[in-house]
Amino acid sequence: MSAPKQIFVAVVGVGGVGKAFLNQLDHIRQRLSSAPVPVALSLVLVRRSTKQLFSRDFAPLDIPSALSKLDAVSEPQQPFPDTLAALARAPGRVILVDNTSDQALAETYPSILSAGLSIVTPNKKAFSHSHALWQAIQQAAANGTGPATAGHVYHESTVGAGLPVLSTLKELVDTGDRVTKIEGVFSGTMSFLFNSFMPVGGGGGSFAAEVTKAKNLGYTEPDPRDDLNGLDVARKLTILARLAGLPVESPTSFPVQSLIPSELESCSSGDEFLTRLPEFDSRMEELKESAAKEGKVVRFVGSIDVGAKAVKVGLEKFDASHPIAALKGSDNIINFYTERYGGNPLIIQGAGAGADVTAMGVSGDLLKVVRALQ
Amino acid sequence: MSAPKQIFVAVVGVGGVGKAFLNQLDHIRQRLSSAPVPVALSLVLVRRSTKQLFSRDFAPLDIPSALSKLDAVSEPQQPFPDTLAALARAPGRVILVDNTSDQALAETYPSILSAGLSIVTPNKKAFSHSHALWQAIQQAAANGTGPATAGHVYHESTVGAGLPVLSTLKELVDTGDRVTKIEGVFSGTMSFLFNSFMPVGGGGGSFAAEVTKAKNLGYTEPDPRDDLNGLDVARKLTILARLAGLPVESPTSFPVQSLIPSELESCSSGDEFLTRLPEFDSRMEELKESAAKEGKVVRFVGSIDVGAKAVKVGLEKFDASHPIAALKGSDNIINFYTERYGGNPLIIQGAGAGADVTAMGVSGDLLKVVRALQ
Repeated sequence: MSAPKQIFVAVVGVGGVGKAFLNQLDHIRQRLSSAPVPVALSLVLVRRSTKQLFSRDFAPLDIPSALSKLDAVSEPQQPFPDTLAALARAPGRVILVDNTSDQALAETYPSILSAGLSIVTPNKKAFSHSHALWQAIQQAAANGTGPATAGHVYHESTVGAGLPVLSTLKELVDTGDRVTKIEGVFSGTMSFLFNSFMPVGGGGGSFAAEVTKAKNLGYTEPDPRDDLNGLDVARKLTILARLAGLPVESPTSFPVQSLIPSELESCSSGDEFLTRLPEFDSRMEELKESAAKEGKVVRFVGSIDVGAKAVKVGLEKFDASHPIAALKGSDNIINFYTERYGGNPLIIQGAGAGADVTAMGVSGDLLKVVRALQ
Repeated sequence: MSAPKQIFVAVVGVGGVGKAFLNQLDHIRQRLSSAPVPVALSLVLVRRSTKQLFSRDFAPLDIPSALSKLDAVSEPQQPFPDTLAALARAPGRVILVDNTSDQALAETYPSILSAGLSIVTPNKKAFSHSHALWQAIQQAAANGTGPATAGHVYHESTVGAGLPVLSTLKELVDTGDRVTKIEGVFSGTMSFLFNSFMPVGGGGGSFAAEVTKAKNLGYTEPDPRDDLNGLDVARKLTILARLAGLPVESPTSFPVQSLIPSELESCSSGDEFLTRLPEFDSRMEELKESAAKEGKVVRFVGSIDVGAKAVKVGLEKFDASHPIAALKGSDNIINFYTERYGGNPLIIQGAGAGADVTAMGVSGDLLKVVRALQ
């Protein structure tokens, strides 16, 4: 029996998603090592912004103890380009797991892929920045239009976390279906906020109170304006639109409705913003009342009309019986309207945020790369 | 530049799904032929029960004209084992596309896979028959526990047609999630029937009238008893339960509620059955009324409680606000309850029947095999 195929895994970013990913990696490593055609997955790098643990001789790091060993590292941080160069000399294929939201790292993806390293990541920046960067990544990747020797890139968790959103869209397109429209709730924060602010059947607190509640429950970014400006949803729509064939230039090149009152854009802190937000509750209350009069509810959605090449993000009214209205908790819902599926869309729904489900999207992508490299 | 990799495609069964598949194959063939790392997909066989068109020298058949050329074939039908033996001598890897529901062919999958041919299929028989056949297929396939030289097998369309049901379940399991429960509406016919018989909000005709309507609209098998006996749903549940880790023996080894009144099981024809069905309308009407009193609706569902190892198929009551109650038309809905996803399930919903969407599941599987063979 020949030695199992060696694949090296380098993890950058060990926050919530990174930690959950390492747990899943340990499960996957064990399963693959005892598979009939075994694969040896070796963790060789864990890196956070201030320090890294790197197995320079490519001997596998013990996964369960990797983070405590990382904590104990005392040498000064190495520049990442040096580490990347060392990874490119590994005695086998390398998968870089980017669990950061680092724009600078994202911009180096084309050169990382060209060096033969594969990338799996929930980092939206690489795929929702300029269309030029998107093209450069596609042109560099073996599973884009790059050479067979290049790395593969997968980023399922950039939209809907672990939900099979991008893989489904890609399969629709690759098998020749015509996607006509994509519509949904793409933010766990916005989902929670509007399901609480205006639940089907009535009730709900004032908008400012619901924002404060969401923040206290940990559903928002530290500064809730980073959710309310709509940019996170706009990034996800940019990625979906590009996969559906629209050459969207950037997440700011189409209409995105911000829920930050213009008067509060200049607040110096998230706390000041939250303190002043109730002054503007009457605007949201009017919207709520006008929707209720039509028997509808208000939700913060994104939509892509592929034929009209129109992408937009903002508040829309939905009948109480619409699946988007009936969403619960912080769930995401994504509706794909296509020629094949006709009047009723293909719907994918469930938790679209959270460390475990986001890491699952990354782990699933890792398995796709392993299959491609086998 | 080296010659593109050759992969040969052999199609058995050219009914509705087979025809739709050939259209999609033509799209995929063109796309892959001009990919940066090109693959030459060559159709070499189209076969129906009475005749076949086989390119014995493995020169590609023209896909758009293949069916009319098949119609013009006048030689007597060749035994399939002879054709399979010839396919096993192809100058490259072969993908067999089984668009039949042939039990005998299904039973030969292990030997076909062992001979190195891959299989993609919507044929439920192979995966829902005895557990011994299921195990033999897993043990023979390269993507099961078979040798790397064996063929790969994929069967997404056996549950929910083109909806990403099996791939999602497999990813949940492979990345280490614990699936606790799977519940849903798995039959387009049963979906249509109960969404019409007892729509949310009241209304609907008598049960017998709705069965007749469904038959007239082409939503049922030629003999509607083949839907109403629950066996089709039981087969799908068998497949899902096995993928979730339960060694279910067969689709008749767990409780399956048949909607055929026992008095009508012996009817000699579907027409006689339909004529007499109204005699039993009062039973279904009672059920409808008792559900309505609780503010619920009745639906025909399948469920798998993984922890309790309990699989069952039959009628259940659901709150009007439950996603299963709100289903439209002939849509399927599949809810995955898992440890990671917590209280709100991961939901996949949409058309679960129809030639184009079923063929899409098969085409998507074909792409997975092509990636594995590249």
